[in-house]
Amino acid sequence: MPDDQLVLNAGSATVKFGLYDGQGRLRLRGLVERISEAPRLRLLQGEAPTERFRPLAGGPADAAEALLAWLEAEGLLAGLGAIGHRVVHGGTHHAAPVLLDDALLDDLEALATLAPLHQPPALATIRRLRAQQPGLLQVACFDTAFHRHQPRVHQLFALPRRLADEGILRYGFHGLSYAHVARRLPEVVGAERAVGRVVIAHLGQGCSLCALRGGQSLASSMGFTALDGMMMGSRCGRLDPGVVLHLLRQPGMTTEQVERLLYHDSGLYGVSGISADMRDLLASDHPQAAEAVELFVERLLQEIGALTATLGGLDALVFTAGIGEHSAEIRERCVARLGWLGAALDPAANAHHAPRIDAGTGPALAVIPTDEEGEIAAATRQLLEASSRR
Amino acid sequence: MPDDQLVLNAGSATVKFGLYDGQGRLRLRGLVERISEAPRLRLLQGEAPTERFRPLAGGPADAAEALLAWLEAEGLLAGLGAIGHRVVHGGTHHAAPVLLDDALLDDLEALATLAPLHQPPALATIRRLRAQQPGLLQVACFDTAFHRHQPRVHQLFALPRRLADEGILRYGFHGLSYAHVARRLPEVVGAERAVGRVVIAHLGQGCSLCALRGGQSLASSMGFTALDGMMMGSRCGRLDPGVVLHLLRQPGMTTEQVERLLYHDSGLYGVSGISADMRDLLASDHPQAAEAVELFVERLLQEIGALTATLGGLDALVFTAGIGEHSAEIRERCVARLGWLGAALDPAANAHHAPRIDAGTGPALAVIPTDEEGEIAAATRQLLEASSRR
Repeated sequence: MPDDQLVLNAGSATVKFGLYDGQGRLRLRGLVERISEAPRLRLLQGEAPTERFRPLAGGPADAAEALLAWLEAEGLLAGLGAIGHRVVHGGTHHAAPVLLDDALLDDLEALATLAPLHQPPALATIRRLRAQQPGLLQVACFDTAFHRHQPRVHQLFALPRRLADEGILRYGFHGLSYAHVARRLPEVVGAERAVGRVVIAHLGQGCSLCALRGGQSLASSMGFTALDGMMMGSRCGRLDPGVVLHLLRQPGMTTEQVERLLYHDSGLYGVSGISADMRDLLASDHPQAAEAVELFVERLLQEIGALTATLGGLDALVFTAGIGEHSAEIRERCVARLGWLGAALDPAANAHHAPRIDAGTGPALAVIPTDEEGEIAAATRQLLEASSRR
Repeated sequence: MPDDQLVLNAGSATVKFGLYDGQGRLRLRGLVERISEAPRLRLLQGEAPTERFRPLAGGPADAAEALLAWLEAEGLLAGLGAIGHRVVHGGTHHAAPVLLDDALLDDLEALATLAPLHQPPALATIRRLRAQQPGLLQVACFDTAFHRHQPRVHQLFALPRRLADEGILRYGFHGLSYAHVARRLPEVVGAERAVGRVVIAHLGQGCSLCALRGGQSLASSMGFTALDGMMMGSRCGRLDPGVVLHLLRQPGMTTEQVERLLYHDSGLYGVSGISADMRDLLASDHPQAAEAVELFVERLLQEIGALTATLGGLDALVFTAGIGEHSAEIRERCVARLGWLGAALDPAANAHHAPRIDAGTGPALAVIPTDEEGEIAAATRQLLEASSRR
């Protein structure tokens, strides 16, 4: 039977994809970018040339449809067994990937108010592809799922409890990334530490940290939305709510404008006034760039400290995602200030982004590349196999 | 010359006061409460009976004027040399108490937009008393002053830098409390630790934590407003800004209603649905009370962890203010989970709220009663003496 899996990650501006074979090997990956202006397919691996789509109305669903047509025309869909979708929000119920059906889609639609920027593109894409390929198995993988077994105290805000009943909870995100890293923990930090007190720092364009115990999520720096917690490329992270209220009282500032400011004009970009990209800031000799990086490191240390307090100590600290995997300097500056936890860096290993970058004493320090698409493919493959056995 | 000091702390609902003699001894203290409905004077020390004022329009300034008239009639103002006022916000300029004059009042007025709930009552009171007693020396003591020498990285939010230029910075509050506790540190934890890595947890109706190094404020959990940081009696503390945006999009929710919810319906009160008072919650056997206390302890641990990371370790942890000074249970539950920092409690000392509650190993653990009014009196006395020497 056909057992390839197509992984789709539909956002508001891009649709990322990966095609995996039955053994989980990546055949092809890429993205459709600028989907609302001049959609364009870009392959990130393999040798096929860049392909241009004609402009399409409607955003991610149209882009996904065009992508499938292109894959079909290239003869790449012959072995397709299932499509796995990244869905940001699984609400309080979903602690694992699930097969999509109409009832589930309605449930997920109801969650759109909890993630108005991220949920709709994925759901529109799923509905379109289900209509087009009704017989094809499709799977939803949630960014919140990994965190769903957190103790209630870590899911609560200090807000009126009726709001918790209405779903205003700390869901946590980047769960597919954490699930992947958690799976690889034993081989990198050893079986014993892997089930101990672990902090994973997912530092990409979005940033969050997760405290794990027994290999499971105990607490996360991200809460109800992707704005919470750690400072990011262009997002502020956690913020005095009084600042939000103050901004809303400035002449001409609407909720939408404040939202745009906090999501797009803040973080590294806002503080530096130069770039949201850590590489640009580290390469710059402008004092504003240095200030943004200094704040990023300070915030990172504070998040590590907070989660270490929740865990009652630290057995392993793992860096992942763009900055976490590739910036030896950020890792160095962070670890240099964790001596009070016994942390000690092996500078050569760190410079080479080695899996283990500690000097052999104190908590394990590790670099584990994340692979959210691979995680979705693996989950999709699992559900595909389970469903073919029935 | 007359050298008594009257300390006034004018809020929107109460005016608290204390009368101190030239040696800094407290002669009398009390408050005018319910100032907008049926103002009433209540003495908190001494034997004078409760006195009722007639209803007065206009709030804190009227209440303060009536208070002075009462003190005058009782013959208590004969030795008055100066009035010291608590002013929440001193902006970026004031790192110390200052003599009030017209130019300064105008400056402080301009800061009212930064603290719309707290600044106006104090300024209205000051203006009234200056008009009434133009020759009397008056002093402003700021809650922000203790934090003004923090490194810029601890004053910055991860927001567009033009907002920092406009004054949207992490000011920190409870500075009069921290200044008092910092002054007492050497006698309680020893001279060496007093200049080391110290965290003070001010846990009252409002709660914040401050990291000190060299006896000075390095970082605080409170930011731009009194909503930030630690969970409080009825305030949420730091919050995913996405939650604020989400609440604003609920039908019928205005900025004012969201503000009321975050200031008055959240924190211990919101989570328990029972009370904003820690004593009520600890005495209750209701699971919702237990949940609120559990969240409070968890948030406290995370704030301690974050500031410990900033300090690079912990030499002393000090508890102060209502909960900090009087709740052996909260201190015990907190320290029980700080074993990873080497902290160890002396249960008997803790039960008696002794100045030192550690078991003699690890970081010093201390209980130091705060005295914000005493701090204002001391500062006022100092400026009074300096001005009389000229």
